[in-house]
Amino acid sequence: MKHSSLETMRHSTAHLLAAAVKKLYPNTKLGVGPTIDDGFYYDFSFEKPISSDELPKIEAKMRELAKDKLPYTKTIKKIDEAISFVDKEGETFKKELIEDLQKEGEKEVSFYQTGEFIDLCTGPHVDNTSELKAFKLLSLAATYWKGSEKNASLTRIYGTAWESDSELKDYLERVERSKENDNRKVGKELDLFVFSDVVGKGLPMLTSKGASIRRELERFIVDEEIRRGYEHVITPPLAKVDLYKKSGHYPYYKDTMYPTMKVDEEELILRPMTCPHHFILYKDKLHSYRELPLKIAEVASQFRYEKSGELSGLMRVRMFTLTDAHIICTKEQAKGQIKEVLELIDFVNEKIGLKKGEDYRYRLSLGNRSDEKKYYKDDKSWEEAEKVLRETLKETDSPFFEAENEAAFYGPKIDVQIKNVLGKEETAFTIQYDFVQPKRFELTYIDENGKEKEPVVIHRSSLGALERTMAFLLEKTGGKLPFWLSPIQFAVIPIADRHLDYAQEVNQKLLKNKLRSLVNSKSEPLGAKIREAQLQKIPYMLILGDKEQAQKNISVRNLNGENLGSKDLESFTQELKKELPNG
Amino acid sequence: MKHSSLETMRHSTAHLLAAAVKKLYPNTKLGVGPTIDDGFYYDFSFEKPISSDELPKIEAKMRELAKDKLPYTKTIKKIDEAISFVDKEGETFKKELIEDLQKEGEKEVSFYQTGEFIDLCTGPHVDNTSELKAFKLLSLAATYWKGSEKNASLTRIYGTAWESDSELKDYLERVERSKENDNRKVGKELDLFVFSDVVGKGLPMLTSKGASIRRELERFIVDEEIRRGYEHVITPPLAKVDLYKKSGHYPYYKDTMYPTMKVDEEELILRPMTCPHHFILYKDKLHSYRELPLKIAEVASQFRYEKSGELSGLMRVRMFTLTDAHIICTKEQAKGQIKEVLELIDFVNEKIGLKKGEDYRYRLSLGNRSDEKKYYKDDKSWEEAEKVLRETLKETDSPFFEAENEAAFYGPKIDVQIKNVLGKEETAFTIQYDFVQPKRFELTYIDENGKEKEPVVIHRSSLGALERTMAFLLEKTGGKLPFWLSPIQFAVIPIADRHLDYAQEVNQKLLKNKLRSLVNSKSEPLGAKIREAQLQKIPYMLILGDKEQAQKNISVRNLNGENLGSKDLESFTQELKKELPNG
Repeated sequence: MKHSSLETMRHSTAHLLAAAVKKLYPNTKLGVGPTIDDGFYYDFSFEKPISSDELPKIEAKMRELAKDKLPYTKTIKKIDEAISFVDKEGETFKKELIEDLQKEGEKEVSFYQTGEFIDLCTGPHVDNTSELKAFKLLSLAATYWKGSEKNASLTRIYGTAWESDSELKDYLERVERSKENDNRKVGKELDLFVFSDVVGKGLPMLTSKGASIRRELERFIVDEEIRRGYEHVITPPLAKVDLYKKSGHYPYYKDTMYPTMKVDEEELILRPMTCPHHFILYKDKLHSYRELPLKIAEVASQFRYEKSGELSGLMRVRMFTLTDAHIICTKEQAKGQIKEVLELIDFVNEKIGLKKGEDYRYRLSLGNRSDEKKYYKDDKSWEEAEKVLRETLKETDSPFFEAENEAAFYGPKIDVQIKNVLGKEETAFTIQYDFVQPKRFELTYIDENGKEKEPVVIHRSSLGALERTMAFLLEKTGGKLPFWLSPIQFAVIPIADRHLDYAQEVNQKLLKNKLRSLVNSKSEPLGAKIREAQLQKIPYMLILGDKEQAQKNISVRNLNGENLGSKDLESFTQELKKELPNG
Repeated sequence: MKHSSLETMRHSTAHLLAAAVKKLYPNTKLGVGPTIDDGFYYDFSFEKPISSDELPKIEAKMRELAKDKLPYTKTIKKIDEAISFVDKEGETFKKELIEDLQKEGEKEVSFYQTGEFIDLCTGPHVDNTSELKAFKLLSLAATYWKGSEKNASLTRIYGTAWESDSELKDYLERVERSKENDNRKVGKELDLFVFSDVVGKGLPMLTSKGASIRRELERFIVDEEIRRGYEHVITPPLAKVDLYKKSGHYPYYKDTMYPTMKVDEEELILRPMTCPHHFILYKDKLHSYRELPLKIAEVASQFRYEKSGELSGLMRVRMFTLTDAHIICTKEQAKGQIKEVLELIDFVNEKIGLKKGEDYRYRLSLGNRSDEKKYYKDDKSWEEAEKVLRETLKETDSPFFEAENEAAFYGPKIDVQIKNVLGKEETAFTIQYDFVQPKRFELTYIDENGKEKEPVVIHRSSLGALERTMAFLLEKTGGKLPFWLSPIQFAVIPIADRHLDYAQEVNQKLLKNKLRSLVNSKSEPLGAKIREAQLQKIPYMLILGDKEQAQKNISVRNLNGENLGSKDLESFTQELKKELPNG
């Protein structure tokens, strides 16, 4: 076990699956069986279609073979010999694969044998099947040979494999939670957003509860950024298409942009990014070096055409709202500005409950000097920019790694990599160093000596796209949002009807304090009201009975079911208001 | 004078203008000379073009003729006689007019004579020219006979006339102020918004100062409406075009809608109104009578194609942000709901500085039962709805008047008529009673007896379109906005460099209190700094010198130049915070 990587182990488990299938269904033909994220699959052509009910039987056979401690033995065959071998076995798909290799000029191919099962394979593999313990078959899906509808249909069996049972268990729990916490499911349960075919795909409508979360996020980031010296502007989410041709975005983005609209002599298009608008605003006046850095920010609506199969609740939509900004500064100021951006992102992530190094880290995405099609050609500027970003990450002790060939066309970037509910890293948003667009838009400032100079631009977000951030938080928490983001923060629960007046009084005091509260005045048992508040993921339940009414206080329960005891309403709310991010 | 209406007087002044022109330029041919809002014009074909420099000379001749006390004498001529009369005079345009009348079957026409001047005219007129005293020629413009470019070019002279010199003076001052306060001019002076041909016509970009005004308005209205039980949602500013066909809006609005965009199989269009989105949200769930009234509100982006000639700064734009809502309620609840809306509008208008009855009043816009093309046919519902609106206006003692044939296609409405800087009433926004769309969208609720019923919908705004409200306020105040809306509320002015630290300290305290403040740290004389703050229309200047620094207080001046004396910063800011609308 020590010598095998997780990937080798998963690939060996795929062979084990195929071996088990051939034992149970001898006339099955084999497709391919690669590893994937978190596991593997194998494609088969079964004589008779099988259902997922048969997966346990196959898995049992796999365990049986694993116990047999069968070695993985490599043999090399001449390519002609290999073709006639698989042909004899009736493995038509394997034959096609080897013939493809022959066309590419291969002279010989390797096979791996495990017990009676032998498969075309370059390896490597584990020593023997007894090393395979922590695996599980997950699901079954229809597919096509070589992925094309024109070819034969195959049955794909998915499985996962890990180094230990506890890792397998963790993984299965994560999968379960990701299904349980899917933003579409949580959004529906908590009544946060609605999609409608009558309106259009990928265009969410936020209910008052969903809009409340978005509004809190938006006001928080706007106030915080203004406090940090950003100029918050509001520009329209469309412009003439020429603007995107000028910016150089058009060739890279046109496939994901909406169609143009002809209005009089203007050809307008919904914008896929905000930078050109901000540059036009900057260019409206002359600027002195004294005004730099000039930080133009916006909570900006943007539109991108995403394939309908990729839309997924609020996680991926066709219209989104980016907390965007463009910092226009001198080259010398760039490093200091990027440090401040990292500091802002750390501040913001902490407020929404993400831990640095644990829930998120940074990725330095580099360009490729030899790819002039993908990256603007200016080796010196690339070197400089990459150096600035790398040094900034180091000097701020930010956890990061580097990735080749992941930059924007106009410069390198730092990606904010957030771990999703499956434990996988995704790029949430980025900080980009841009030395191309200042040239294209002829951005200038007047330096100390009265000379015209070209600034650099740092493109950055701070909280990502609000829709995606919401989806992410819903999936991470299953709807148990931080107090300040909860659409309803308090359920005021009178035990009996005679406590209703007092409940209303408490509710009114909370609302006056700009907290979000409601009274559950239904004639239901206390238990049912508590359960309802819990289902609605309301952080605090204020339970009011005779004692509370007499003593003019409140009895508090939190969402974990903990009884926090009797509290004075005033001091309790003052305590909680300290939790508010701009409180 | 007592017997002549303002309009008669203005029309007589137009004749006086023509008489003066004919005296001074005998070979001039006459076009037409009607009255218009606030005055009149007359179109002429001059032998040689004249410039506006000649207007004083013409006006002087008018005054001369006025003093002559020339009577306006009516004569009737047979139509053939009339044609040969004007033909003889060489008045080819008048000839064409009389020939047109002949074609329409007229047998005779009337003329009015004033001294030597005689003009085709139906009257009525004042008795004699001495009644005309308070008039002024304003400007000169090029135009075409009968408004068509295919016809001869004419020169139009504009004038105004009033019953008294003081009214004339008031009017001229209003015109002057309207030029001075034009939102485009004020917006540029205060750096509030920018338009760019590269972005597109009618698409304003709000600078950070302009965005600050809009943000204050938006947060104010959202918080206030939520306090009043509105559900504030966020829906996308586009949808499938089918939605607007279903709502019945399409035929009425298609000329002012943007072109559609084909995305996969969907044909999308930018929305010109919010109602269909809100109805789709409502329909997402079943509703009980207990939930009604359900008040769905949104600060909603909308798009309408306005002719480029009609665009005017923020006053008329192609993308606007309406403070919109749809109250879905039972018929019985409608009156109470409309009363609450009127109460909200009065509350909001007071906060932005408008006085009921003086700055604004209401208009009850009625339908026309016989016009089935313009108005949905349902006489009974129209009667009911108009009665509800009329009663509501009366019972709330709202100042209002009635207007025929001004309703929406789906029902009557109450228009909020605001006086603009020229003193003219404009419809700012409306409250509409809608009994048609609930049917079209099959909106229902379950009544007390478990039966499905159809609600009515009240469409309403509360603060109008934010862009237009901003433009209106800028024009009314010339940029001297109410304290809570001022982009910069305080200019902190150190008298000398040695007061700079104390100035920063004061500034920080203001910012911490979420007030908007800046320090003028320039090395300029105090007078220059005060002048700059005044030009920027900053409500308060805090002037800090040795005395203030020693006593740790502030010396305050307001925008009117009044010295408010020494103040304690803390108590002064607490006092001002009470002025904030949600303070």
